[in-house]
Amino acid sequence: MVGSVQPISLLPIGVVRSPFTTQQGTPLQTVAAFDIEAVVELDPHYAPALRGLEGFSHCHLLTFLDRAEWGGRLEVVPFLDDEAHGVFATRAPGRPNPIGLSLVRLVAVEGATLRVAGVDLLDGTPVLDLKPYVPPFDQVEATSWGWLERRAAEVHRTRADDRFGKRAG
Amino acid sequence: MVGSVQPISLLPIGVVRSPFTTQQGTPLQTVAAFDIEAVVELDPHYAPALRGLEGFSHCHLLTFLDRAEWGGRLEVVPFLDDEAHGVFATRAPGRPNPIGLSLVRLVAVEGATLRVAGVDLLDGTPVLDLKPYVPPFDQVEATSWGWLERRAAEVHRTRADDRFGKRAG
Repeated sequence: MVGSVQPISLLPIGVVRSPFTTQQGTPLQTVAAFDIEAVVELDPHYAPALRGLEGFSHCHLLTFLDRAEWGGRLEVVPFLDDEAHGVFATRAPGRPNPIGLSLVRLVAVEGATLRVAGVDLLDGTPVLDLKPYVPPFDQVEATSWGWLERRAAEVHRTRADDRFGKRAG
Repeated sequence: MVGSVQPISLLPIGVVRSPFTTQQGTPLQTVAAFDIEAVVELDPHYAPALRGLEGFSHCHLLTFLDRAEWGGRLEVVPFLDDEAHGVFATRAPGRPNPIGLSLVRLVAVEGATLRVAGVDLLDGTPVLDLKPYVPPFDQVEATSWGWLERRAAEVHRTRADDRFGKRAG
């Protein structure tokens, strides 16, 4: 990489309030947490910044996964597999910059607060950004998805089978 | 929002090398830049962290949009519209934490370098994270997408009509 790397400083815009206080029992991905509601509490200053978001059925939450542990490992064994993969070939929360990308369903926008469904985030997780989900921008015809092709189906099965009482893998 | 807000410090993992040096002429979204190739140059240290990513056809790049201008406006008129919307109801690059979410096609992984297609990012943009694109996690049946429902089609038309010689809106 050419040039020096400058640290980047971000200030959270809000915080997630969810029923999950420990990683144990927290769903693996938002698809496996379809029914679970949570609240995104933004700084009240940002209420006008949400105008129009209520017209979207879904949005992306970008969060700082403050309790994810990484430890500098470049290859990790993700929850969904028993083999190691490069950390950037996984969605593991522990990674060099632990930014979470959560696709959630918008239930309601009330002032500077969002009620959302499908959250796989711990209570107290700082929120960095919200982006509306726009199918022409966010959906592609993926022709391959690596080691997750055989594993992702298991997330869905777990959802259907036990309503998220335990980790999917 | 309850509690104090602590700044978060992140260290870029790499940089984008793209043909775009000014915002003028840069496509609005990756869907409008389907054919344009760029290079993601990670710190060479991270080469092992890419192992397995070559099995995915697409990935998300999370970047720091270092040249985006925001100026504290909570409502903005995005390029794709002529009405103001809350900044969190838009994909405008200028926002409180200017984190870019770009869905790109993976062309090749070579050491710590990715060749990708469909990039709407300026040359030199710092890269924060890479995540494999996994349809069961990243695709939902969106039932509404607000003001962008009528506008997103125009991005596609612009792509088809003039191969991105100008801004879509």
